[in-house]
Amino acid sequence: MTDLKQKIEAANQKTIEIILSGSPMLVDVAPAREVVPGMTANMILHSAPAIAWEDMCGPHKVGVIGAALWEGLASSPEDADSKIRRGEILVEPCHHHDSVGAGAGITSASTPMLVVENTTYGNRAYSCISEGGGLRLLKWGAYDEDIAKHLSWQAEVLGPVLQKAVRASGGIDVKSIVSRAVQMGDECHNRTVASTGLFLKELYGPLVDIDGVSDKDLLDSIRFMVEADQFFLHGIMAAAKAILLPAKGLSHSTIVTAMARNGVEFGIQVAGLGDRWFRAPANPVNGLYFRSEWSDKDAAPDLGDSAITETVGLGGFIQPAAPTVQQYVQGSLQQAIANTQEMTQICAASNNDVRIPAMDFAAAPIGIDIRKVVQTGIAPLIDTAITHKEGGLIGAGEVRAPIACFEQALKAFAAEYMQ
Amino acid sequence: MTDLKQKIEAANQKTIEIILSGSPMLVDVAPAREVVPGMTANMILHSAPAIAWEDMCGPHKVGVIGAALWEGLASSPEDADSKIRRGEILVEPCHHHDSVGAGAGITSASTPMLVVENTTYGNRAYSCISEGGGLRLLKWGAYDEDIAKHLSWQAEVLGPVLQKAVRASGGIDVKSIVSRAVQMGDECHNRTVASTGLFLKELYGPLVDIDGVSDKDLLDSIRFMVEADQFFLHGIMAAAKAILLPAKGLSHSTIVTAMARNGVEFGIQVAGLGDRWFRAPANPVNGLYFRSEWSDKDAAPDLGDSAITETVGLGGFIQPAAPTVQQYVQGSLQQAIANTQEMTQICAASNNDVRIPAMDFAAAPIGIDIRKVVQTGIAPLIDTAITHKEGGLIGAGEVRAPIACFEQALKAFAAEYMQ
Repeated sequence: MTDLKQKIEAANQKTIEIILSGSPMLVDVAPAREVVPGMTANMILHSAPAIAWEDMCGPHKVGVIGAALWEGLASSPEDADSKIRRGEILVEPCHHHDSVGAGAGITSASTPMLVVENTTYGNRAYSCISEGGGLRLLKWGAYDEDIAKHLSWQAEVLGPVLQKAVRASGGIDVKSIVSRAVQMGDECHNRTVASTGLFLKELYGPLVDIDGVSDKDLLDSIRFMVEADQFFLHGIMAAAKAILLPAKGLSHSTIVTAMARNGVEFGIQVAGLGDRWFRAPANPVNGLYFRSEWSDKDAAPDLGDSAITETVGLGGFIQPAAPTVQQYVQGSLQQAIANTQEMTQICAASNNDVRIPAMDFAAAPIGIDIRKVVQTGIAPLIDTAITHKEGGLIGAGEVRAPIACFEQALKAFAAEYMQ
Repeated sequence: MTDLKQKIEAANQKTIEIILSGSPMLVDVAPAREVVPGMTANMILHSAPAIAWEDMCGPHKVGVIGAALWEGLASSPEDADSKIRRGEILVEPCHHHDSVGAGAGITSASTPMLVVENTTYGNRAYSCISEGGGLRLLKWGAYDEDIAKHLSWQAEVLGPVLQKAVRASGGIDVKSIVSRAVQMGDECHNRTVASTGLFLKELYGPLVDIDGVSDKDLLDSIRFMVEADQFFLHGIMAAAKAILLPAKGLSHSTIVTAMARNGVEFGIQVAGLGDRWFRAPANPVNGLYFRSEWSDKDAAPDLGDSAITETVGLGGFIQPAAPTVQQYVQGSLQQAIANTQEMTQICAASNNDVRIPAMDFAAAPIGIDIRKVVQTGIAPLIDTAITHKEGGLIGAGEVRAPIACFEQALKAFAAEYMQ
C-alpha cells in the first residue's frame, strides 16, 4: 500500500469512528438569532450549496422574499429584491452556519431552531422546526398571509412551548429514536412517522409538566405536532449535521460530510477538503406527483439540505426499512434491498445502530467514500420531495447524486494531497 | 358442488364480509361491573376456554386468588379457595362475557375495561387495560402487595383519566391504528409498540384537555402509558373480539371465531357452532426465555385469550410485518414470510386493510377455515408470551394450535349439518 493510500485509510477510519461515536441530543429550541453561529437580524438562510441571488430557483426566491417580508426586513417583494441586491439583506447557505433546512431551507432570525448537541464532541448543529404537513409552506417556496400567520404562531407559541419542554426533558437522544424508528418503518428521510411518534412520546411528560403556558397554547402545540407526521425529520437532520461536523477538515479523509441541493446545483463536501463545495447540475427527481395536474414539467430540480440524512446512511441508503416509501417510485422490496446493497458498495462502513428488519437486521451502510463512488460509478441514492418550480410541494420520490460532484472532489483531493 | 358445500361457501363468504366490515371503535373505559355483560361483584374472569377450578394451571389459580383478595372478596388465599369451591366467588371465562384477557386474563368487578364498539353491527366487546410492562403482573399470574397497589392505582386513577379522555375523543378507530401500525413494525400481538404510539398520539389532545383531574394524576397516567410499550394490545384484542362477535352462530360457517388457551387446554369456537369450545391439550411455547435461569421446565403451556388477534389474521399470521419478533424464535424474515404463506393456505380471505410491507404489501390472510386446517394439516401459528407455571412472565415466542381442536370441530360440524 502506498503511503498516501495508508494515510487515506487511516483518515477514513478515523472519520467513521467520529461519525459512529457521535451522540446527538436535542437540547434546546430557540430563535435562530439567539443560537445559530453568525446569524444576524438581516440574514436569511437557504438550502446549500451557495448560489447567487439571480441564479436561484423559484422556490428559493419565493422563500427568501417571504422570509424578508415576514421578518419585516422589506415592505414588498420588490423592496426585498433590491435590498438583497444591495446587500442590505444577507442571503447565505444554512450549511455555512452549522444548520440544515429541508426543501428551500428558509431560516431567518426569528425562526425557532432545534438545537442538537453532539455530546461526544461538544459541537452543536441546528435546523428550523417543521412547519407541519401541507403542500404550501415556506420551506416549499410558498408564501402568503396564512403562511405568515402560521410562521408567527410557530415563533410566538410553538417555539417557546417546545423550548420549555425540551429543556425540562434534559435532552432527547436522537440516535436512540432513529435506531428504534428504523425498526418501525422509517427510513428517516421521506418517512419519519415513527421517529416523530417516538419523539412525541418522550416529550409528553415534560410537555404536560411545564408552567407558564396557557392550556390553549399547550393544546394547540400538541395538536399541531400530533398532526405533523414528519415533524421530527428536522431533528434527525440537525442530528446528522451534528454528527458530521467534527469530521470536517480531517486531513486525507475521502468521506463525504455533506450533500445538498439548491434546485439548480447538487453539491457535496468532503472531510479532507473542508468547506469547499463540489457541484454539478441537480438531477430531476423520479417519483410520484400528488395530483394529476402536476408532471415533470412543473418540478424544480432536486432541492434541499435533507440529503444530510443519506450522508449518515439513512433515507435512500436504507430504503428497505420503509417499504411504504417504495410506493412513490412504483418500486418493490426487492428493488429497495438491491438499492441498499448498491449503497453498501460506496460506503466505508456499516452502522450497527441502524439495522434493517427486512434484510434480517443487516447493519446499514454509512460513510460515502468519494473514491468508491468514482470507481464503481454508483451514485448515492436520495429519497426526497418534489418541489414545484414556482413553489409548493407537489410530490415525492428518489434521485441520484450526480457522479460529476464526486469526480470533481476526487480531482481536488488529488491536487490537495498528491502534489 | 353439493348443496351443503354451497351453503358452507355462502356462509363463509357472509362471515368474511362481517369480519372485514367490522368497525371497532374504542368508545369508553369503565369498571367491569358497570359495562361487562353478566358481570357481578363476586365474579372473577379468566382466559378461556372454561376449566374447573381444581384443574386450573398455576398462573390462573394465583391470578384468581389475587383478584379475590384485591377485591376484598376473601381474607386469605385459603378463604378465597373455599369460597370459590362453595360457589360464593364465581369464576368464569372472559369469552363468556364478550371479553378477552391477555395471559391469565384476570378480570374482576373493579378492573377498568376498554370498551370497543363495532359500530357496523352495534355490538361491544371488552378487555382489561394493560397493567404495563414488567414480569410480575396479575395477568401473568403473580400477586403481592405491590401488584395490589398498582391495580388500585389503575382502578382509581388511570381508569377514570382514560375514561374522560376516551369519551372526549369521540371514539378512537382501532382498525385504522392497526392498519398503520402494521406499516410500522407491529404484528399486533407480540409487538404493539407502534399501535401504542399511534393510540397515544390520538389520545394526547383529549388527555391534556380534560377537567377535574389533578396534574399529578394526569402526569402519572401519561408516564405510565408512555412506558408501557404494549399498552394497546388490549385495545386490539377487544377490537378483534368485537369484530368476531357478530359472526357467532352464523349457520353453516366453518370460520373460527375464537382461539383461546387456559394453560391446560387450547380451545376454539367456530361461527356455525355457536358457543361450543373444541379443545385439546395446549402446546408448549417455542421461544426465548428472558433470563438464563428459566427453561422449558419452568413454563406453563400456552395461556391467554390473546390468540384472538390471530383469529382476525394478525400476530403469527403476519410475522413478516414485525421482523424484530423473529428474534424470540431465532427466525428470519424468510421464515416469517413462509409462515404467512402457510397461514394463507388455511384462511378463507385476505384483508386489504392489513398489508405486509416486507411482502410488497400483500394483503394479510384472514378467516381460519377449519376445513382447510384439517385438509392441509397446517395448524394456526400464534405469537405469544411464555408464562411461568407458578406465575410471572418469563419469555416470548410462538406456538401452534393443536390440530385436534379443528378435527373435533369438523366432526361436530358434520354432526350438526350433515344429519
